Amino acid sequence: MKTKTSANLDDVFFPRNVAIIGASPGVAYPLALLGGKLRDRLFMVNPNSTEVFGRKSYASILDIAEPVDYVILTLPAKYAVQAVRECVQKGVKAIHSFTSGFSETGLKEGIEMEKELVSIVKGKARLIGPNCMGIYCPKSGLSFNPASTHEEGHIGVISQSGTFAQFFIHAGRSRNVKISKIVSYGNAADLDCPDFLEYLADDSDTRVIALYIEGIKDGRRLKSALEYAGSKKPVIALKGGVTGQGGRVASSHTGALAGAGETWATMFRQAEVVQVDDFDDLLNAAVALNDSPLPAGKGVSIITYSGGFSVVQTDMCVKAGLDIPQFSAKAVEELRKFVPVSGTMVGNPLDAWQLFYKYEEKDGTLKDVLRIIAGEKDVHSIILQFDVIRFMLNMWGDKFEEYFAAVAEKVLQGCHYARESGKLVIVSMFLDPFAENEIERKYNLLFKKRLESEGFPVYPTLNDAVRTVASIYKYTEMRRKKLLQTG
Amino acid sequence: MKTKTSANLDDVFFPRNVAIIGASPGVAYPLALLGGKLRDRLFMVNPNSTEVFGRKSYASILDIAEPVDYVILTLPAKYAVQAVRECVQKGVKAIHSFTSGFSETGLKEGIEMEKELVSIVKGKARLIGPNCMGIYCPKSGLSFNPASTHEEGHIGVISQSGTFAQFFIHAGRSRNVKISKIVSYGNAADLDCPDFLEYLADDSDTRVIALYIEGIKDGRRLKSALEYAGSKKPVIALKGGVTGQGGRVASSHTGALAGAGETWATMFRQAEVVQVDDFDDLLNAAVALNDSPLPAGKGVSIITYSGGFSVVQTDMCVKAGLDIPQFSAKAVEELRKFVPVSGTMVGNPLDAWQLFYKYEEKDGTLKDVLRIIAGEKDVHSIILQFDVIRFMLNMWGDKFEEYFAAVAEKVLQGCHYARESGKLVIVSMFLDPFAENEIERKYNLLFKKRLESEGFPVYPTLNDAVRTVASIYKYTEMRRKKLLQTG
Repeated sequence: MKTKTSANLDDVFFPRNVAIIGASPGVAYPLALLGGKLRDRLFMVNPNSTEVFGRKSYASILDIAEPVDYVILTLPAKYAVQAVRECVQKGVKAIHSFTSGFSETGLKEGIEMEKELVSIVKGKARLIGPNCMGIYCPKSGLSFNPASTHEEGHIGVISQSGTFAQFFIHAGRSRNVKISKIVSYGNAADLDCPDFLEYLADDSDTRVIALYIEGIKDGRRLKSALEYAGSKKPVIALKGGVTGQGGRVASSHTGALAGAGETWATMFRQAEVVQVDDFDDLLNAAVALNDSPLPAGKGVSIITYSGGFSVVQTDMCVKAGLDIPQFSAKAVEELRKFVPVSGTMVGNPLDAWQLFYKYEEKDGTLKDVLRIIAGEKDVHSIILQFDVIRFMLNMWGDKFEEYFAAVAEKVLQGCHYARESGKLVIVSMFLDPFAENEIERKYNLLFKKRLESEGFPVYPTLNDAVRTVASIYKYTEMRRKKLLQTG
Repeated sequence: MKTKTSANLDDVFFPRNVAIIGASPGVAYPLALLGGKLRDRLFMVNPNSTEVFGRKSYASILDIAEPVDYVILTLPAKYAVQAVRECVQKGVKAIHSFTSGFSETGLKEGIEMEKELVSIVKGKARLIGPNCMGIYCPKSGLSFNPASTHEEGHIGVISQSGTFAQFFIHAGRSRNVKISKIVSYGNAADLDCPDFLEYLADDSDTRVIALYIEGIKDGRRLKSALEYAGSKKPVIALKGGVTGQGGRVASSHTGALAGAGETWATMFRQAEVVQVDDFDDLLNAAVALNDSPLPAGKGVSIITYSGGFSVVQTDMCVKAGLDIPQFSAKAVEELRKFVPVSGTMVGNPLDAWQLFYKYEEKDGTLKDVLRIIAGEKDVHSIILQFDVIRFMLNMWGDKFEEYFAAVAEKVLQGCHYARESGKLVIVSMFLDPFAENEIERKYNLLFKKRLESEGFPVYPTLNDAVRTVASIYKYTEMRRKKLLQTG
């Protein structure tokens, strides 16, 4: 039985009200919070204003009559110590310092000030940061970005980098990333990564945890928290600073010692945490783990319109530790009944561009392809490369909406069938971010949202899809081995 | 001295006129050619029509009074043999068969038909394909895609995959890919990859060659052609089917034996050809090699607004064989004069988000950052991560256009200065393809085009930028070693 050591953080994530010290239209927090559930329990504090966004602005937190649970500091660093003293005096339970200029500067003055903040709050309040974005929690209303959807979901994020925390917020709109909680924890002067890991491990609203970490003060404590979280739910981790040079940069970013890449890899493996190499992989894996079935093995089938992609992506899969198994004779025979001979490959990957344009037929459509492939016992995940809307627009002209609606239905029926057969189904949909084709973009986004609303992850490139399947397979494989060991 | 063996292919790339056999509004070729220089020297052949796009349609090529240099076959495979016989009778010099259904099917009938095509043209005409997109040559007017810009450039492309050839066409509009010639050569029944390699090696309009290849019939001939081309200009190659499973798929795609990955890697290395792993890398490297200075070493500096990206991308650079050197004490001292202490890292990478928003100051802007970093002798390439337009729009509101114009000028001046100092300068500009923010997209694309028009490559992600610098460094390193060997 894994154990945890941290305090309950409900007071941190679910304050009854919030004050922003240093509130002004120039910082993101007032708008971020006005968009969520705390909008009517929000106090602005700024001695240089009388109001901010139409709300009364107090000169000091001590001027607020009501009790205050949670404070966001956005004032210059030199005023932070005094502000934190006043927060403690006021009885605030949690203080988040967006304000930077502390230990991360590497300067003696900043390091001393950070120590002072910690000694002031000790035993009285919890401190988040300094030098971080803080908390996003749609269920309570906390947020750090006006672009937040405030939609409640099941992906938990813990990030030592503020930028990556922001990217998860933006992905809430564009990548179907539905969040339970995001924590950007910066210098971790008080609350640190292990505290948040253990809290999210026990949080019933969180199904999967995405972690970005650069370094840690207490390695044993992190190891224990990772093992606790890893035993409870899927955890995906991106470790920044795995190379010597990256470690040097990490230590000047958050002041933490990055340590050797191999040590971290071992720690993650032992905790059944999937380590990824890249931010996109972290985000993509979290989306797929949120509500897709786990594949029972490493067999992948790719359904595509391109021989070139078939070849290159098979290489990608193999390099990523996956397998592109050959289809059974029976499946090949069934497929040959309706896949044209010319310009196609009846095998795995299945390259049959003509089928993407079949809207009329009752039989022999992509639906049947998905059904037949879902029946293959060596195939555990299916990737459908659906980049063809631009060609359909050219080919079908005025008839596009009618014909495409028919194709879309068949594809969705096939995807549902495959998922009900226990397969992980992922769609890749390429849209060049630099291409100026708004009509193409519009129809792609409509179909993407439809797929997502029915629970299928959609990624912008085939590489994203392959790498995500690889991450998830890695997770299932670690679970399987662990169960065998403990079995 | 490298030698070549192939015939001159000017007759193939520069026909005086073209006939499309099987012309109809449903195939891409009539529109593709009507958009270019051959529009008035174009014959439609289709016994089932009287006209195609308002042009007279002939029942047979033999009915055309004028001589015909080049024919595109888009009719069903079963009519191809007869059509090719008529072409030879007519004195056609080059026949491109888009028509598929030959050796790539793996069926006896298709293999036999392909042999017959070859025996008919032998000594009389050259055959491109079958089962391929054919040729795009803006200078002559040949094309296979109505989306072609027909703009003349200096990137040559040879692709065994039709899809990848098409992607280069689309990238003509979105990725500043200016083409001299593209060849999609498919089954290579007659003209094969080595023929095109040697032709593009000697082509004064082609500065860089991008190659996608799956397999080859005559390995010695390919080796010799690669060495010839590699001695003349930069060649970037993506080999499809480097893994066992990928090789199996490749052989069913184009019928060619893929061979062992290591054998190919050795051949590329010996020919000074840079091998990449992915289609995006192929395209991106071609763009940068087209008109950027070659970096003199592996030192990279990244200018960013994010500590998280600083750390992760340093790891990426190191893993890709690059180096993120520390700045000299002098550069750090100069930078410290204007980079704020709080929330930044004065080092390499340089993480200083505030500087991206400096529009007014005469000193201490991104222009000065670029100037100072360009002065560092250990820095050979500079990557500027410019993803900040969305934040500027929020921050500046009505003043955005005015302030951004000032920032843009400073950035451009700095980029020019760095390039004049001999540095490879690349901009990464992230635009989420699935994000619905047309205003953000508009301003990003405007700035992207400005940067490109002044000769700076722009990539959609920082990973693209890092991987491209790695490809180009690999090329310069191979050249350097070769020059040392040959003294």
